[in-house]
Amino acid sequence: MSNSFGKLFKLTTFGESHGKAIGGIIDGCPAGLELDLEAIQYELERRKPGQSKIVTQRKEPDQVEFLSGIFEGKTTGTSIGFIIKNTNQKSNDYSDIKNTFRPSHADYTYEKKYGLRDYRGGGRSSARETANWIVAGAIAKQLLPKIQINAYTSSVGTIFLEKPYQDLDFNLTESNDVRCPDQAFAEKMINLIKEIKKQGDTVGGTITCVAKNVPIGFGEPIFDKLHARLGNAMLSINAVKGFEYGSGFCGAQMKGSEHNDAFNTDGTTKSNLSGGIQGGISNGMDIYFRVAFKPVATLLQKYETIDKEGNKQEVQGKGRHDPCVVPRAVPIVEALTAMVLADFHLLNKTHII
Amino acid sequence: MSNSFGKLFKLTTFGESHGKAIGGIIDGCPAGLELDLEAIQYELERRKPGQSKIVTQRKEPDQVEFLSGIFEGKTTGTSIGFIIKNTNQKSNDYSDIKNTFRPSHADYTYEKKYGLRDYRGGGRSSARETANWIVAGAIAKQLLPKIQINAYTSSVGTIFLEKPYQDLDFNLTESNDVRCPDQAFAEKMINLIKEIKKQGDTVGGTITCVAKNVPIGFGEPIFDKLHARLGNAMLSINAVKGFEYGSGFCGAQMKGSEHNDAFNTDGTTKSNLSGGIQGGISNGMDIYFRVAFKPVATLLQKYETIDKEGNKQEVQGKGRHDPCVVPRAVPIVEALTAMVLADFHLLNKTHII
Amino acid sequence: MSNSFGKLFKLTTFGESHGKAIGGIIDGCPAGLELDLEAIQYELERRKPGQSKIVTQRKEPDQVEFLSGIFEGKTTGTSIGFIIKNTNQKSNDYSDIKNTFRPSHADYTYEKKYGLRDYRGGGRSSARETANWIVAGAIAKQLLPKIQINAYTSSVGTIFLEKPYQDLDFNLTESNDVRCPDQAFAEKMINLIKEIKKQGDTVGGTITCVAKNVPIGFGEPIFDKLHARLGNAMLSINAVKGFEYGSGFCGAQMKGSEHNDAFNTDGTTKSNLSGGIQGGISNGMDIYFRVAFKPVATLLQKYETIDKEGNKQEVQGKGRHDPCVVPRAVPIVEALTAMVLADFHLLNKTHII
Amino acid sequence: MSNSFGKLFKLTTFGESHGKAIGGIIDGCPAGLELDLEAIQYELERRKPGQSKIVTQRKEPDQVEFLSGIFEGKTTGTSIGFIIKNTNQKSNDYSDIKNTFRPSHADYTYEKKYGLRDYRGGGRSSARETANWIVAGAIAKQLLPKIQINAYTSSVGTIFLEKPYQDLDFNLTESNDVRCPDQAFAEKMINLIKEIKKQGDTVGGTITCVAKNVPIGFGEPIFDKLHARLGNAMLSINAVKGFEYGSGFCGAQMKGSEHNDAFNTDGTTKSNLSGGIQGGISNGMDIYFRVAFKPVATLLQKYETIDKEGNKQEVQGKGRHDPCVVPRAVPIVEALTAMVLADFHLLNKTHII
Repeated sequence: MSNSFGKLFKLTTFGESHGKAIGGIIDGCPAGLELDLEAIQYELERRKPGQSKIVTQRKEPDQVEFLSGIFEGKTTGTSIGFIIKNTNQKSNDYSDIKNTFRPSHADYTYEKKYGLRDYRGGGRSSARETANWIVAGAIAKQLLPKIQINAYTSSVGTIFLEKPYQDLDFNLTESNDVRCPDQAFAEKMINLIKEIKKQGDTVGGTITCVAKNVPIGFGEPIFDKLHARLGNAMLSINAVKGFEYGSGFCGAQMKGSEHNDAFNTDGTTKSNLSGGIQGGISNGMDIYFRVAFKPVATLLQKYETIDKEGNKQEVQGKGRHDPCVVPRAVPIVEALTAMVLADFHLLNKTHII
Repeated sequence: MSNSFGKLFKLTTFGESHGKAIGGIIDGCPAGLELDLEAIQYELERRKPGQSKIVTQRKEPDQVEFLSGIFEGKTTGTSIGFIIKNTNQKSNDYSDIKNTFRPSHADYTYEKKYGLRDYRGGGRSSARETANWIVAGAIAKQLLPKIQINAYTSSVGTIFLEKPYQDLDFNLTESNDVRCPDQAFAEKMINLIKEIKKQGDTVGGTITCVAKNVPIGFGEPIFDKLHARLGNAMLSINAVKGFEYGSGFCGAQMKGSEHNDAFNTDGTTKSNLSGGIQGGISNGMDIYFRVAFKPVATLLQKYETIDKEGNKQEVQGKGRHDPCVVPRAVPIVEALTAMVLADFHLLNKTHII
Repeated sequence: MSNSFGKLFKLTTFGESHGKAIGGIIDGCPAGLELDLEAIQYELERRKPGQSKIVTQRKEPDQVEFLSGIFEGKTTGTSIGFIIKNTNQKSNDYSDIKNTFRPSHADYTYEKKYGLRDYRGGGRSSARETANWIVAGAIAKQLLPKIQINAYTSSVGTIFLEKPYQDLDFNLTESNDVRCPDQAFAEKMINLIKEIKKQGDTVGGTITCVAKNVPIGFGEPIFDKLHARLGNAMLSINAVKGFEYGSGFCGAQMKGSEHNDAFNTDGTTKSNLSGGIQGGISNGMDIYFRVAFKPVATLLQKYETIDKEGNKQEVQGKGRHDPCVVPRAVPIVEALTAMVLADFHLLNKTHII
Repeated sequence: MSNSFGKLFKLTTFGESHGKAIGGIIDGCPAGLELDLEAIQYELERRKPGQSKIVTQRKEPDQVEFLSGIFEGKTTGTSIGFIIKNTNQKSNDYSDIKNTFRPSHADYTYEKKYGLRDYRGGGRSSARETANWIVAGAIAKQLLPKIQINAYTSSVGTIFLEKPYQDLDFNLTESNDVRCPDQAFAEKMINLIKEIKKQGDTVGGTITCVAKNVPIGFGEPIFDKLHARLGNAMLSINAVKGFEYGSGFCGAQMKGSEHNDAFNTDGTTKSNLSGGIQGGISNGMDIYFRVAFKPVATLLQKYETIDKEGNKQEVQGKGRHDPCVVPRAVPIVEALTAMVLADFHLLNKTHII
């Protein structure tokens, strides 16, 4: 259940890490959209493993194949089916994982919920699923050509990018491996990740995302507040532990007289602690939010755990894993943001008589 | 659109602050549940205005009337319709609000989205709507008698309750006006709110919520992760700016070797930085999360704003408003948590052949 | 469960025959629609009991009260809550119905499904629920002012109105009690119903509905074909046993060379056996369909049945019931048609980039 | 939009006649179901083209490939992705169809709705889509091993199988090419189809379907009445013009005293004009219904039509088409019935506290 995302611009997905392919169906994309397929593949390259030294060294091309819904380069209004073949499944000896539960993974909960699980490479709980989201997000971006969505790494461990987003040049985000648009901080973050990797350890971090030029009126007033849908989307990404927008948790320490955003005469606001959303609805100012990622649970260290029968087991972590998930999660954050905005873009059309 | 919450245990609501009544329809509550109507009304009392000196002094009984779906004290399996009459609408002079936009309110965005708005008392954007949620949440609690959901005020402004939830006695939450289960901190918080109120100002805060005895297996692995649904729910509450669960934003600063929760041989974990959820699915440990509330936007001060034509206007804030929304939001956080859990409780039944 | 109808223009309902009120919530109606409340009440009058000699003599005003979503005569874009009070519940002795099951009613299936039931007046299974649909349908009609929806009684028992709809003057539909727009046939039908009523018996019939001026393009190609949604709607009405559109069951006897609708050069078709829908999508021609209603199950006769324990019981039918449901069902057929079309009207807006 | 079917047991599909593949995602199938893959393929063989002399002579293997959701032969509770490759697309000269509209096809309505269409082989409107439904339906059947679903051809043109279903041996359905479980009538039907085919013409027909052993309590009382969902499903099949269940259109001619189904003391009924459903809920008796199919619109004859510019064109029908769609639609009717019942099977689990 619950393998669908969105109401009008809707993605439904399938796939395990070690099946033949993962894939999805995009339903609700309007007809006549001229698709830039290279731009879609480009987003997949940003997420794919093996792209730099600070991410997992697994090699996988992550090539998307569209099977339907596109004709002569344009969307037809029918459902868009696609697959991404799995090409790098090692026929590993999975006997360790098969019978034991890795701490802070989904092994134990899947086993208990479903009574069985595809243990190879994490099965359905693998972050490989997010490649599907990238595809849908890349199409959503093309549906909203005027909106600019920029995510970037704003912290790794305790190294925080100490600049507001307004002082950053988003053109620099892709210029370094950690996707931080400030070279000095990027270097520090990269060094930290390399150090952590040497230890066989992992580290968490945060991503900040800014959406500019979102039209006024996106979002619904009660249960589909724009930020509630964005939060829901971000909390769907593996390893995410928190979401805040606008003033966020800091705002909870403030007084109203400090926090209110006074109006300019054109309806814009002087400050933007609201984060571009008031009453759940976009007000035309920049939307910005921050997402917290825990450290990856897979360590290349020995650890103690239990097997299915409840016996203690000592296991040696191995394989090719990300020491820090944040750099590869940047395009995922953007993709989900685009999907949420595309959904509200379509929904908003229905509010006019 | 989007006045519904939940998939199987589903609430749909209506109502403006100054209409005849607000209300809702609960669909999907199983038949045969013996309802304790007093317990439902009790939850409404916890939320209602006028209950103490640190909340709005508006008096409104918030009496729920059930219109259907209950027969001889039991649910019948059909939809449960209810209303809560609005009894305290002052026939105020709303000419101020009618033509001007209050900063950091939903006035501007509603006007732009819909082309018109019921400006009286905030209309649909009024937090009065949450009384509907309390009703549904109170029924959800009764559907899940073994699960204990306890929310409490964990900070007001910069006063933080400096104790982990494990050291608190939740029986004390209702013993003071701010709903903080530690008397010393409660007093500090209350004093701060009183001070702020005197200034005609407001202040933000946070609520922490703990759910105990949640069965293993609640939550879906991809797009309805348990924490993603909880986050979505919390971000639906007026004034909420952030959500984190388990280690939250702190977890993003940690290393994997510090963050992983090692197993005991019975499947419980030694630590619980996961917050009771792994891979989106409950693991039987306590679920806990924290919600950030911005300060209320309505100040009893003079402020400058614009009118519909974009002219500057000086307005005097007035009326009866909460200096801090947090104490009254505690039962709302619990209600939404109960609704989310009730939904997964029902959904989980469908996973068995 | 399943007390909602529609995807974008969405009605959710509640209410039992003998509760305080029935009612509903309309979600998704665009803002700014100027509502003609009298036109809504007029539709309720067409459905209400006691309106003529050939329907149930129960008297109930069926006055709708709107509680939200309308401001200064216009929809606000928020959810529209309404109730219709139940005023005519007789505090009958229900001991008969309480413990026995009426044949071909929902008594037995409700009891078995839910383990209990509100037996008074049929509870939730009462056709009183359709008053809620009338309200939503009347608003849907106002959302689609150019579309003309006309339903009428096309047969009662074995008396069939032997004229194609093109030869009828729909202005005559309301001129007689049976709602047949041909006076000669109407008289025959009325006489039959009176005769049947005298016998304490009931009789079935059919309703034909014609929707003119439906824009080209309503309906989705796969699972929300326009006729599939219309069929679904009609089969939701109590007592309906069949649905056919265009050539219907007769079409199944034909050859393709007889059945195909040849084009005129303007895209209209010479014949219209398609019933205005091709591939699930409206083609701009008249949409027409026919709905079969079984005879009302409640007879004013003695009958044998069983009680909860499976003992035989002889029961005497009594009360005020319709000898033929068809005349009062005419506005219900129109209301649901309008709701389906309103839904596709809104959905169609989302198909444009 | 609207490429999904079902609420809990949910199929989402994609695919055009001439793309690389069609396929779908089944979401909500419980974990631990041991799948008989041969039984799934068997159902596909029943639907596939080229299986006999009275259906289209196009050859296509229709081999399903499962890509996810199954592990070691069992469902895992995650989404089941599958594809069926298109292997028989002739690189025809489509210039005829490209610029002209075939009468009573979806060409015109797709073009007008979407502004463009994949004209090759009907694109998304091709009945090839129903192969996807067969896959989901075959899994649904395995989820409900005790329920027996039998559909059969009950008429072709004006040749009606003049026997009630109770007098038929469903084991004979597959023994002849037309899928009529009475050899004498089957022969007549086959001869008629052959005759029609020779003329380059096509013919309509009806399918009757019987579901035995459906538990009491399937179906929801208001908007998801069991028969309303079945009707909706059947009306989703290409070429269907009507649906009736139980007494159907005949019931509309009857009197209540003739139509009511009297109870036996065990809760079964003496007659079954209700068709196994009362108040929208199954009562444990056989469910039976009838579905009307119009004649296939593609004739192998010359016909006149218009092109996109509205000019008259004379076109020669060609290709490999079914002279009668009914024999191949029999497994489709069964598949959709199984999907509807599987959905209610899962939904019913949520009605218990």
